[in-house]
Amino acid sequence: MSDDTTRYDDAVRVTGVTITPAAFPDPPLLNSVGVHQPWALRAVVEVHTAGGLVGLGETYGDAAHLSLLSDVAATLTGLDAYDIAGLARRVTTVLGTAEAPDRHGLTGHSSPSKTAASVIAAFETALLDLQGQAAGRPVYALLGGKYRDHVPFAAYLFYKWAAHPGAEPDGWGEALDPDGVVAQARGMIDRYGFRSIKLKGGVFEPAEEIGAVRALRHAFPGHPLRLDPNCAWTVDTSVRVARETDGLLEYLEDPTPGIGGMARVAERAAMPLATNMCVVQFADLPEAFERGAVQIVLADHHYWGGLHASIQLAKICETWGVGVSMHSNSHLGISLAAMTHLAAATPVLQHAVDTHLPWQEGNDVVQQPLRIIDGAVQVPGEPGLGVRLDPDALARMHENYLTCGIRERDDTTYMQRFHPEFELRRPRW
Amino acid sequence: MSDDTTRYDDAVRVTGVTITPAAFPDPPLLNSVGVHQPWALRAVVEVHTAGGLVGLGETYGDAAHLSLLSDVAATLTGLDAYDIAGLARRVTTVLGTAEAPDRHGLTGHSSPSKTAASVIAAFETALLDLQGQAAGRPVYALLGGKYRDHVPFAAYLFYKWAAHPGAEPDGWGEALDPDGVVAQARGMIDRYGFRSIKLKGGVFEPAEEIGAVRALRHAFPGHPLRLDPNCAWTVDTSVRVARETDGLLEYLEDPTPGIGGMARVAERAAMPLATNMCVVQFADLPEAFERGAVQIVLADHHYWGGLHASIQLAKICETWGVGVSMHSNSHLGISLAAMTHLAAATPVLQHAVDTHLPWQEGNDVVQQPLRIIDGAVQVPGEPGLGVRLDPDALARMHENYLTCGIRERDDTTYMQRFHPEFELRRPRW
Ligand SMILES: [Mg+2]
Ligand SMILES: [Mg+2]
Repeated sequence: MSDDTTRYDDAVRVTGVTITPAAFPDPPLLNSVGVHQPWALRAVVEVHTAGGLVGLGETYGDAAHLSLLSDVAATLTGLDAYDIAGLARRVTTVLGTAEAPDRHGLTGHSSPSKTAASVIAAFETALLDLQGQAAGRPVYALLGGKYRDHVPFAAYLFYKWAAHPGAEPDGWGEALDPDGVVAQARGMIDRYGFRSIKLKGGVFEPAEEIGAVRALRHAFPGHPLRLDPNCAWTVDTSVRVARETDGLLEYLEDPTPGIGGMARVAERAAMPLATNMCVVQFADLPEAFERGAVQIVLADHHYWGGLHASIQLAKICETWGVGVSMHSNSHLGISLAAMTHLAAATPVLQHAVDTHLPWQEGNDVVQQPLRIIDGAVQVPGEPGLGVRLDPDALARMHENYLTCGIRERDDTTYMQRFHPEFELRRPRW
Repeated sequence: MSDDTTRYDDAVRVTGVTITPAAFPDPPLLNSVGVHQPWALRAVVEVHTAGGLVGLGETYGDAAHLSLLSDVAATLTGLDAYDIAGLARRVTTVLGTAEAPDRHGLTGHSSPSKTAASVIAAFETALLDLQGQAAGRPVYALLGGKYRDHVPFAAYLFYKWAAHPGAEPDGWGEALDPDGVVAQARGMIDRYGFRSIKLKGGVFEPAEEIGAVRALRHAFPGHPLRLDPNCAWTVDTSVRVARETDGLLEYLEDPTPGIGGMARVAERAAMPLATNMCVVQFADLPEAFERGAVQIVLADHHYWGGLHASIQLAKICETWGVGVSMHSNSHLGISLAAMTHLAAATPVLQHAVDTHLPWQEGNDVVQQPLRIIDGAVQVPGEPGLGVRLDPDALARMHENYLTCGIRERDDTTYMQRFHPEFELRRPRW
């Protein structure tokens, strides 16, 4: 199959692509593999067209991913923004069987097809932004239309240190016990009005984290709660935690590694199990569903192959009676907009969407970021993604990137700098 | 959820919908439920917009379906052509649990959701045609891009009488034995260059139809062959036929009724089983796949919910390692264009697409129908579907409709007029 060589108007004919790595301050958020480094990395994708339009995308900023992005970017000149098939073809051609390792290990196993999907996604968002601008329609309209006017997001709580070692305390304070977690939730809910709460676990012994869940349930009796230990537990520990949190959790996310392990937990856990670690690409779905390993899949367009692919994932889940929620990594306002359009266009989305955005508050690459009010983002009606790049902000974040010295996310090594005894173990308990 | 009330430009804002029932001559094609009536019915959908554009759709012309179409059509004024979600909402609201019975019984069981899907599809094609015209892009570009430049179609052979009783013989002649079938295949392949052959079976005893398959294999050794008896056989008969046609068939289509029956055949048949009768809506997929009942699903946007939904179906099949082919009823050039765009945008499509088009040759509602050359249709690059209505032809076909007296397809009653002993039995052998 050749390129789509039909000559259309040049309004959204790609003339060049800019990929700008960016870094922004990130608090010391704890998880099962370590602690967030002081700087989070992202890459901002700008696709320029002959018509003077610019399409935006946002993706991972790790060095290996940046390298693949720029290899593909070089081949996109001349592409029509509607030609997603042409994008996919270019990615396949350029990448071959290249694989960008998932060093932080928090979004499941890596594979060549998952790597390709994450590269496609980075550009697909930008092409859809261009399509929307050209058509005068929001991105959700290109995905099949809007099924909700507001997209609910969840308060994403983390155990955290008061400050990065040697730095000033951040505004969120320490959260290393149930009281700290509840205080963090209160602060976040006061400011954003979240109506669902997720606690990132896998940091302390299960009993401690169960205590935090109980404290949250007591403090916020009407808020659905989720706990995500990132596969820190054995099957037996998972089953025990499930028993002790019976009736407290909306869902339990990735308690234990692997489809097999999850299936064994699911058999004995009363609450649904969710995942963004054992089901991370289409090829994982048949076995996971057949074995009843997961009752909720966390979509993430950044690695599922883009917005179109994520709509397909949601349709598959709907067909198999599996719930859909949405996963988040540290991100900025372009991703927030993309996630909002995706959620708007997803007919069946039963759960509030995860977002790290409050942790990056005050730092964004877009001029007027979408705002979370009463726990939800109003779906923007402007053409395309509905957000515009702030070039000064991007320049500052790129400067951060150049000077911060971080070239890939590595929570484990950063943790070991302060706690040399810290070992990466999965499951840990 | 309210309507998408964002005010866009009015170019594709719906101002009215015309639904025109049409009838065109159909030869006496035999199948397991009877014989095609002298007139085939379709409905042509025209969606008019404030910008003067007209979007085209084509669907079933049976009375019950027409009634549902016009109920929905009345609610579409003001809809933005990009708002497929709004279309789906209107259909759900208007139809409730209405169900249009599938009287001819050749596309599986009917259900309220399948009925809704077929009504959505009729309008979705027209809205996508409008989107494409507005965006200056072919419909395939709105579905994710083009994965092939030419879409292969299959020669669709039927046992047939030389003429409808009392009428002049048609140009195709009689086909009631292997020689007749081979002659029909030769005529069709000479004219269209088809490289795959499908025989509609379920008409004669299996031994007779196996003979026809053998004769076709002998006459066309390089053409993949399919046989579709429309569930005319028991499980045992199906297994026996599968054994006797081992090595001769690309796939065996719907030998026996039901997912359970198909699963039992699939266990013992060497060739893949295909279906457009036991898997006809998303809800059928999980059980069918889990039980290994089908190895190929025949997509049909007319009842799977439209072009977007059919792309989703194909993705599901790809994910589960199930093949995709495409089903056809008697149709005209609008459906041919829609099927061609769908096939172009389907990344994995392993088989030539079914079409009844040669049987309607010379009768079309579009000005310059897409042509099948060397067995394939070149994917059109014009904006939208790439076909334009021929108003005179539509007026003639509507006049046919008014005078032909047929208001729903009923192959069985028509057969019984000439063969009163004919009984509808499934399975028959
Ligand atoms: Mg997770
Ligand atoms: Mg069939």
